[in-house]
Amino acid sequence: MSMDAKPVSASAINDQTAIVFPNDLNTLGTLFGGRVMEMADRVAAVVAKRHSGRNCLTLGIDSVRFLARASHGDILIFKASINRVWRTSLEIGLKVFAEDFRTMQHKHIVSAYFTFVAVDENLCPVPIPAVIPETQDEKRRYEQAELRREQRLKN
Amino acid sequence: MSMDAKPVSASAINDQTAIVFPNDLNTLGTLFGGRVMEMADRVAAVVAKRHSGRNCLTLGIDSVRFLARASHGDILIFKASINRVWRTSLEIGLKVFAEDFRTMQHKHIVSAYFTFVAVDENLCPVPIPAVIPETQDEKRRYEQAELRREQRLKN
Amino acid sequence: MSMDAKPVSASAINDQTAIVFPNDLNTLGTLFGGRVMEMADRVAAVVAKRHSGRNCLTLGIDSVRFLARASHGDILIFKASINRVWRTSLEIGLKVFAEDFRTMQHKHIVSAYFTFVAVDENLCPVPIPAVIPETQDEKRRYEQAELRREQRLKN
Amino acid sequence: MSMDAKPVSASAINDQTAIVFPNDLNTLGTLFGGRVMEMADRVAAVVAKRHSGRNCLTLGIDSVRFLARASHGDILIFKASINRVWRTSLEIGLKVFAEDFRTMQHKHIVSAYFTFVAVDENLCPVPIPAVIPETQDEKRRYEQAELRREQRLKN
Amino acid sequence: MSMDAKPVSASAINDQTAIVFPNDLNTLGTLFGGRVMEMADRVAAVVAKRHSGRNCLTLGIDSVRFLARASHGDILIFKASINRVWRTSLEIGLKVFAEDFRTMQHKHIVSAYFTFVAVDENLCPVPIPAVIPETQDEKRRYEQAELRREQRLKN
Amino acid sequence: MSMDAKPVSASAINDQTAIVFPNDLNTLGTLFGGRVMEMADRVAAVVAKRHSGRNCLTLGIDSVRFLARASHGDILIFKASINRVWRTSLEIGLKVFAEDFRTMQHKHIVSAYFTFVAVDENLCPVPIPAVIPETQDEKRRYEQAELRREQRLKN
Repeated sequence: MSMDAKPVSASAINDQTAIVFPNDLNTLGTLFGGRVMEMADRVAAVVAKRHSGRNCLTLGIDSVRFLARASHGDILIFKASINRVWRTSLEIGLKVFAEDFRTMQHKHIVSAYFTFVAVDENLCPVPIPAVIPETQDEKRRYEQAELRREQRLKN
Repeated sequence: MSMDAKPVSASAINDQTAIVFPNDLNTLGTLFGGRVMEMADRVAAVVAKRHSGRNCLTLGIDSVRFLARASHGDILIFKASINRVWRTSLEIGLKVFAEDFRTMQHKHIVSAYFTFVAVDENLCPVPIPAVIPETQDEKRRYEQAELRREQRLKN
Repeated sequence: MSMDAKPVSASAINDQTAIVFPNDLNTLGTLFGGRVMEMADRVAAVVAKRHSGRNCLTLGIDSVRFLARASHGDILIFKASINRVWRTSLEIGLKVFAEDFRTMQHKHIVSAYFTFVAVDENLCPVPIPAVIPETQDEKRRYEQAELRREQRLKN
Repeated sequence: MSMDAKPVSASAINDQTAIVFPNDLNTLGTLFGGRVMEMADRVAAVVAKRHSGRNCLTLGIDSVRFLARASHGDILIFKASINRVWRTSLEIGLKVFAEDFRTMQHKHIVSAYFTFVAVDENLCPVPIPAVIPETQDEKRRYEQAELRREQRLKN
Repeated sequence: MSMDAKPVSASAINDQTAIVFPNDLNTLGTLFGGRVMEMADRVAAVVAKRHSGRNCLTLGIDSVRFLARASHGDILIFKASINRVWRTSLEIGLKVFAEDFRTMQHKHIVSAYFTFVAVDENLCPVPIPAVIPETQDEKRRYEQAELRREQRLKN
Repeated sequence: MSMDAKPVSASAINDQTAIVFPNDLNTLGTLFGGRVMEMADRVAAVVAKRHSGRNCLTLGIDSVRFLARASHGDILIFKASINRVWRTSLEIGLKVFAEDFRTMQHKHIVSAYFTFVAVDENLCPVPIPAVIPETQDEKRRYEQAELRREQRLKN
């Protein structure tokens, strides 16, 4: 298994779509929070596996914010990429947008941070290749991820 | 709609069960994180509706921690209760346990905090009755919820 | 595996909740009978496992009655407990209520009896600990369960 | 809406198939009782609608018996037909078989009786056309259905 | 495993029903194309297994046409039968109808051709018994299936 | 609604992921054909909506080929883009790959063509903006789509 460092872009997902179905809605006709979290965890898990080349288990989810509503038939867009890697764990930042297919405008509806640990077949943690932040946004997220980790360890 | 204060116990859920099915598992045979979050959000939403007597929307989810694994056929137990109420929002603490039906022992596998806002038919926030913490645990959680709220507002 | 007798309350479920989703409804907007039976069987199976400390298989379901309607967004409450235990089988009484979260009133919508057999890894029936009815209701159900069993064996 | 009497065969379903999937199984690898009841209720509902030409609501389910096991990949065959019609309600007999596609042999695994009421748009009961039993089996079931109804009303 | 030729009718499915649920619909209230294809593939797979007495894998799907709409609560009827058999593969013709339970009239809404290969436990192709077309329709389909196969091989 | 021509890339989806779950598999442990078609139709529908700025209904699916197997835990990658647009309809080419997250190699497992019609709120067909093929592949697909259409109309 190669341990060469990889850029953020090599594992990022930028255009994962989903259509909002009736059973994804609560009685007020807005998207159910838990339903979007299930979809989001699957997307984040793929990013974690791609970067690490390993199976990954969700360790934690933080600062999930539901910022705006989505409705029946809306197109959801999930974007997820690695913020930072530690020895055997990594943090992924995820955003969900509702896309209006008439205007192609995006409305930011959810943001969240996922932490995964890479494991072998015995569920034991294994080292992860380093990640290389390239853009300004990626570098900013790389710095902030360390602060969030310190806060998580303090709690 | 009565605005009389209610004790934490009036809306709490202490024995919500679920059985782990094959489709709830990842390839390592452990419970999928996003799947348990979907179940958890439904339980928390019921607690929020019971206390407020209103429809409630998920505002945020914080500090989700996956502490131990669960497997095919395990019985999951969800426990959720209100930590604190503000004017139109409230925080719920939720824990998930895996119950061994042979020994009736409980293993703590997930903890999380959910924040909801109570709304009317136009999705506008509405006031929520106060909550009365009665036990030592409830009083401790009541205090800590205020600190977590300050941190959420700061971020 | 302990064969000590256990009280009914040790395995009972009193507050299992579910929210009625669009796909749980027929075209008249009322809860689909088969859907609620699937949820009910899972609840009853947990009660059977808790009491017996064994895997249990559904042997039969009797006298399912749909007494009132439930609609989109209603909170369902499932209550289930052991009525009586025989050598390797047991009967569970189950009721479903629709909870109005505005008034916290409960409407009784379904009742049913489930019979399970406890089995080992080879699917062979194994003895079950005795059950101790404690309340008046539990003692009445204990007596009636024997009459129902005689009727089942006669048919 | 025609109220002409119809033969049993006009609404019967004799070859409704389903494949047993992993999520239909309990931890012992056998078909989950509640899952097969959900499928069965949908089949019985179609028979009730075909005969009555009306929407129908499940009133009750009786004498469900799980007679043998089914496993992953088995083909299930559902057979359902009307036993007897009363003024606004009807009883349907249903059997489930597991088909071995290598030998085309059928193993009887479940039997059950479903009672439905025909309703109009306001959920009010409406009269149902009479049913004509033609074969020996249909005539025997027609007689026995009346005895079962008396027992249901007595309980 | 017998290799005796079998008539088309021995494996055909003529009355597979399904009820259209809210989650099967797109935002215009019509049946989702992909959803009906999932149901159709399960029906076709049963026909393929019945005729071959083997596990079968989907090789291809051709000429799927959505001819008319179906709505919430409609009863769908799937009809599928073998058109022709080659050494290790076979073609199945499938039609879906929407049944109006008030008038018992059928509206043809989907048609499609499925090609399967029969395999052993190692996923290796195995010979399939010949099929005997008996009716005029079956003989016409038998002839046309060969033309479709030539076109598939040419593409 | 703008009728300006758009490049193929403006509506294409190149990195739609899915994880193969136990319930997506047949008894031989390979991905169920109908299940992947349901996922594929949702991806194609998003491409059609993005390009047309309209709701779109599936008219047909052609030449679905299952080329290789996928297993439990595999990452599926769906790629879909517009091949050609006619007055009120369009053709989309779709490919599914299984991604090995250890080596990041892609195995081509499914290909298919989807035809959609753009409709207004009354389900009446409406004109679609022209599409501009830019790359060599896009131009080749643009030419071939016309031949496929002629063949579809001939059948």
